[in-house]
Amino acid sequence: MMTELSQIISQIEPLDPTWLETAQARLDSLTKPRGSLGRLEELAARYVAIRREEMPPLDKKRVVVFAADHGVVAEGVSAYPQEVTFQMVYNFLQGGAGINVLGRHTGAQVEVVDIGVNHDFGSVPGLISRKVAYGSRNMAQEPALTREEALRALLVGVEMAEEALASGVDALAAGDMGIGNTTPAAALASVFTGRPVGAVTGRGTGIEDQVWQHKLAVINRALALHRPTAEDPVGALAGVGGLEIAGIAGLILGAAAARRPLLLDGFIATAGALVAKALAPASVDYLIAAHRSVEPGHQIMLDSLELKPLLNLQMRLGEGTGAALGLSLLEAGVRIYRDMATFGEAGVAEQGE
Amino acid sequence: MMTELSQIISQIEPLDPTWLETAQARLDSLTKPRGSLGRLEELAARYVAIRREEMPPLDKKRVVVFAADHGVVAEGVSAYPQEVTFQMVYNFLQGGAGINVLGRHTGAQVEVVDIGVNHDFGSVPGLISRKVAYGSRNMAQEPALTREEALRALLVGVEMAEEALASGVDALAAGDMGIGNTTPAAALASVFTGRPVGAVTGRGTGIEDQVWQHKLAVINRALALHRPTAEDPVGALAGVGGLEIAGIAGLILGAAAARRPLLLDGFIATAGALVAKALAPASVDYLIAAHRSVEPGHQIMLDSLELKPLLNLQMRLGEGTGAALGLSLLEAGVRIYRDMATFGEAGVAEQGE
Repeated sequence: MMTELSQIISQIEPLDPTWLETAQARLDSLTKPRGSLGRLEELAARYVAIRREEMPPLDKKRVVVFAADHGVVAEGVSAYPQEVTFQMVYNFLQGGAGINVLGRHTGAQVEVVDIGVNHDFGSVPGLISRKVAYGSRNMAQEPALTREEALRALLVGVEMAEEALASGVDALAAGDMGIGNTTPAAALASVFTGRPVGAVTGRGTGIEDQVWQHKLAVINRALALHRPTAEDPVGALAGVGGLEIAGIAGLILGAAAARRPLLLDGFIATAGALVAKALAPASVDYLIAAHRSVEPGHQIMLDSLELKPLLNLQMRLGEGTGAALGLSLLEAGVRIYRDMATFGEAGVAEQGE
Repeated sequence: MMTELSQIISQIEPLDPTWLETAQARLDSLTKPRGSLGRLEELAARYVAIRREEMPPLDKKRVVVFAADHGVVAEGVSAYPQEVTFQMVYNFLQGGAGINVLGRHTGAQVEVVDIGVNHDFGSVPGLISRKVAYGSRNMAQEPALTREEALRALLVGVEMAEEALASGVDALAAGDMGIGNTTPAAALASVFTGRPVGAVTGRGTGIEDQVWQHKLAVINRALALHRPTAEDPVGALAGVGGLEIAGIAGLILGAAAARRPLLLDGFIATAGALVAKALAPASVDYLIAAHRSVEPGHQIMLDSLELKPLLNLQMRLGEGTGAALGLSLLEAGVRIYRDMATFGEAGVAEQGE
């Protein structure tokens, strides 16, 4: 499996700045003052560079939501009971969750992957079953995953990207569902940014101060126990990670190898991006940070990836909801690039003429 | 005409907070942690309060772009020649401008109103002809408009809102086109916020430092000449305003009277909002600030209206481009509110259960 992963990683190339210049030249010929569409122009240029085509289409968009459970909830770190994970998976499949609504609004497909939910779904229409385990183990007591589980989950993510490419998907977004998953995400944030746990750990979906102190203690205990390092990303995932986070990291690697942009959601998805970057630094070139989460550690993670989020709407839901809104902005930028008239076409005078 | 305007103003009521509570109760019953969709929830609640309906639809969206010229360009305050205004109107009608592309992307109609362009269009399909004058006069020499012209332009805006309501439009956005219009917008910003001209005046679509100093001098001269005050909004519009700014102010008043939200674009549209607020303070309740412009004075204007912009994408194009993106976010919020499953419907456990 390590060979398979290495092969994908070897296909990831940094962006060629020549494509950014090609794109900017066209953007500057459109009927608007130069640069006046700001980040929409930046998105369009990046898309051209990612695709390495002069007029890349952007028709099919997909949000892949990875769902998994976390043994660490036994420590009482979440405000919600674990069964909410599988209940929300059913909600996704019925189209009633936030990501379903925003997927429909922005014209993006929503795919739901059971990569590690602690529930037997049997055969449910629409659910992609890639269960690596019935959730992770309690990281405060033992490694969350074996190295093999972590690798398998990474490869599930890669597979989802390859399948998307084969289906003609132009742009991807990553989402998550997993009660308790801010705990592994914060642990990984501390490992990969080098910042103390207290700086990167938020209150998840709404826990009290005492529970928060306890959450810090749990994460610190897990870090002391497994000693994860940024130099061994798979080991870090195994020690203090989670299956959906591994899946997202794999999706990022697969998207970068396939030359497709990946819209990052919030705190959980960005933890996956830290893992992906540690495995393949150039994968960051294919990432677009959609939304800055309310979680205080998110900005620290984004800074370490040198990514500037598009939106700041005080959201903290996950599921890929922020990423779906980001997909719509990416599409806006690409449409501007493709569809606006040039000064010549429209017969409009240019600046200084 | 003053009577007509007073009648519209008398129909504008502040929002009833009971509706905000009704909306929040439903938002809190949806399958997500409370408040976790942040500003999307805020938008949904505001929409319910504006419409005063428990389940208001949001199907039809419209951006109204007012185009006009400005005599003050004779002072050399703009980087573009005046004919760009009418050339861009043709570009709008052919569907090639930024606002056309973003209107199509977000599913909003784009209406173009000639409220004062210095050009004879004759009869052009798609153009709404409500020309009050062939542009404003040079405010550095004489009042930009007569009081009667300012009033007529305000009523054109009101008429556009009434027409939108009659056509079943659920949400409106205001856009502008007018070479030189950052000059009257900055002058009005200074009048209505009480801040010095230097603090609210930016570099428009890209002028040099020397031209900027000259622009400040021109605005200061006009203010000294006409002595506009916030207590006489129509007089301020006449002295240092412009026809498209008056049209936008009228559209805001009409939208508020008709109980429809109005998405504010950038610097120019927000100058119109300052005028509308001075005429009818409650009209601000119906405004949603879509985007924070790169123009430095914009934040000062938004602060004075107590509005917090949804987006900050470094845009400075105008035309309603920021407002169109804001319409899409409003729609996202309303869809969340209308379409997400409740905890009961989805069989998902609530927090603390």
